[in-house]
Amino acid sequence: MPQKPDILDARIVAKSRLFTVEQMQLRFSNGTERTYERLVSSGRGYGAVMVVAMRDERTAVLIEEYCGGTQDYQLSLPKGLVEPGEDVLDGANRELMEETGFGARQLELLGKLSLSPAYMSQSISVVLARDLYEKRLPGDEPEPIRVDSVDLYDLSSLLGRGFTEGRALAALYLVRDLLEQRGELVR
Amino acid sequence: MPQKPDILDARIVAKSRLFTVEQMQLRFSNGTERTYERLVSSGRGYGAVMVVAMRDERTAVLIEEYCGGTQDYQLSLPKGLVEPGEDVLDGANRELMEETGFGARQLELLGKLSLSPAYMSQSISVVLARDLYEKRLPGDEPEPIRVDSVDLYDLSSLLGRGFTEGRALAALYLVRDLLEQRGELVR
Repeated sequence: MPQKPDILDARIVAKSRLFTVEQMQLRFSNGTERTYERLVSSGRGYGAVMVVAMRDERTAVLIEEYCGGTQDYQLSLPKGLVEPGEDVLDGANRELMEETGFGARQLELLGKLSLSPAYMSQSISVVLARDLYEKRLPGDEPEPIRVDSVDLYDLSSLLGRGFTEGRALAALYLVRDLLEQRGELVR
Repeated sequence: MPQKPDILDARIVAKSRLFTVEQMQLRFSNGTERTYERLVSSGRGYGAVMVVAMRDERTAVLIEEYCGGTQDYQLSLPKGLVEPGEDVLDGANRELMEETGFGARQLELLGKLSLSPAYMSQSISVVLARDLYEKRLPGDEPEPIRVDSVDLYDLSSLLGRGFTEGRALAALYLVRDLLEQRGELVR
């Protein structure tokens, strides 16, 4: 691994309710100096979690809700912020109950995915949820969320269904690979 | 598709060199009002592109560079912003030449992936590049980029190699699926 650049200076240059921008003055090991900006999480620091919940061996639960960023309804995975006092699996199960009306008896942390490592500090834990049961918790959504699903062998069709979130698509593919490697999923 | 909320008000609430935050006042079709924030691109508006460049039938080119967001060196795909006067395939080939030292005779647009549609407007085009040849263009990188590679049937190992960018992982899986469906890739 190369030697990391020295951070000569770092300061907050813009801030809103949800977003904080940090400007950094860097000196690379070859002497080159550059000014970088990155987005740092304004969240409460307990982390974010995304859930691949399996309704049966091959079918994962999706949700459709209004996305303020793209100003459109989009399909994606249940996700949210971990609350104080929760571990990441508790948070995954709560978000699942709030957004889909399912709880899971079996929860497994698969790893973390980053958003845009060049410009953003954010990462999200990916949790595989299985052995589901019906259980709804009230969430803070402005309107009911529509629940949908996808077959793990039909993931490439998702772009045509208005599912465009890169990290959520990666999570579904990772689950498919993992379950295949374990012999728990047959094409 | 449900009826989109009305945007009652939208204004810029924070801005830096690279990032712009917009606050929106929304009224959902059930009457619920909410304040949302989203990140809108401060880019030049020609779009962003990410390249899956195949060195042979199964091997994709990766790069490793310093990522300001996570303050660490990370493996990912070549990517960048499309320049004025370029189409997305031209931009993909230029970024490939700048970051990896390869050009491609065959370039194909596969689709677009979004970053975090709930909070960000950004999306990135995914381009498949094949029939590579050696060609380096000077880039604006602060230090040389290390070039690496991955077998398309070993993608789930990437998390353990410091490759965490969700949308780039999704792009690699999409290419694998597409090439398999076309019969151009054999496991």
